[in-house]
Amino acid sequence: MSADMSARELFAARGLDVPMAAIARHAGVGVATLYRRFPTRESLITEVFADQLAACLAAVYDGLADPDPWRGFCAAIRTLCDLQALDRGFTAAFTAAFPGAVDLDAQRDRAMGAFAELAQRAKDAGQLRADFAPDDLLLLLKACGGLTAGPAETALAASRRLTAYLLHAFRADPGRPPEPLPPRAPPFAMTPLTR
Amino acid sequence: MSADMSARELFAARGLDVPMAAIARHAGVGVATLYRRFPTRESLITEVFADQLAACLAAVYDGLADPDPWRGFCAAIRTLCDLQALDRGFTAAFTAAFPGAVDLDAQRDRAMGAFAELAQRAKDAGQLRADFAPDDLLLLLKACGGLTAGPAETALAASRRLTAYLLHAFRADPGRPPEPLPPRAPPFAMTPLTR
Repeated sequence: MSADMSARELFAARGLDVPMAAIARHAGVGVATLYRRFPTRESLITEVFADQLAACLAAVYDGLADPDPWRGFCAAIRTLCDLQALDRGFTAAFTAAFPGAVDLDAQRDRAMGAFAELAQRAKDAGQLRADFAPDDLLLLLKACGGLTAGPAETALAASRRLTAYLLHAFRADPGRPPEPLPPRAPPFAMTPLTR
Repeated sequence: MSADMSARELFAARGLDVPMAAIARHAGVGVATLYRRFPTRESLITEVFADQLAACLAAVYDGLADPDPWRGFCAAIRTLCDLQALDRGFTAAFTAAFPGAVDLDAQRDRAMGAFAELAQRAKDAGQLRADFAPDDLLLLLKACGGLTAGPAETALAASRRLTAYLLHAFRADPGRPPEPLPPRAPPFAMTPLTR
């Protein structure tokens, strides 16, 4: 198996902390060979998660393409949560700082910008509560990240149930305005990838 | 510092995986001394989390003592989520199997039984949606567990915002019944403490 596919599998199963040596072993190559191709853990993560971030961006753009703002908003969130439930490394990568990876950072910013647009469109249509903050998406993704222990189908079922509850909570209800929310958390610090 | 206080601190900051050697070091005792007092990791965790489970049980009983079922339900959930946000070991311990700790297992069963009663009371009053499952409490606690990275005040703020969204989602709304929920996840496997 290629090194980046091996890394992909191990990141998904065990998160981003997997040692480089374990990745090399899984790929059937020497550690030196792995380091020649990916001089830093970041460079490997960058390669592995380019696809993930692209999938994430695509989910948000698909949402924007839906003529119904609320349906588009919900579909994007459901897709992102499924990605997260099936892949332990996803939220970690999405919320990680990529100091050496300008392209990935730019792509994440693009995804967050498009998501903010999606949320605004649903607010303008009176379908999304006004106090929803675009970075509540990270709150939701990190919460789904708390459900990833155990087999994939358990994580997926748990994540879908949590997501259904939250989409209901996000919905504007002109008939009965919701309790005011506590203030947003200070932004989650971007996690340095190496430590 | 005593060994159980040291363990308490390290479990809270780093979760239940902390090596026994690190606990001994933090307590300023030898590993052999630690093992003499706590022959297994489980026996140490049992001692450390007896207080936590008692606090949890008290939160649920306080909820039951409130004459307003919905207010009691919300207060219990808020307290449990705060406990979780401030203590990374809490949900891990709450959802862990304690094979050697009959008392702790019994106490957790008592807490879950009392919580089910609290939920039923709020359903009977028409305040809690009928498809809420008592083990959605574990879903919520595990989701809050996904928010514990970073400083305690960030975790607490994030957890409170998530909890506020979810309490809104749990509320029965006779005017507009919510979308049906996806089925409950298969029960989270009780995590073996030793591995």
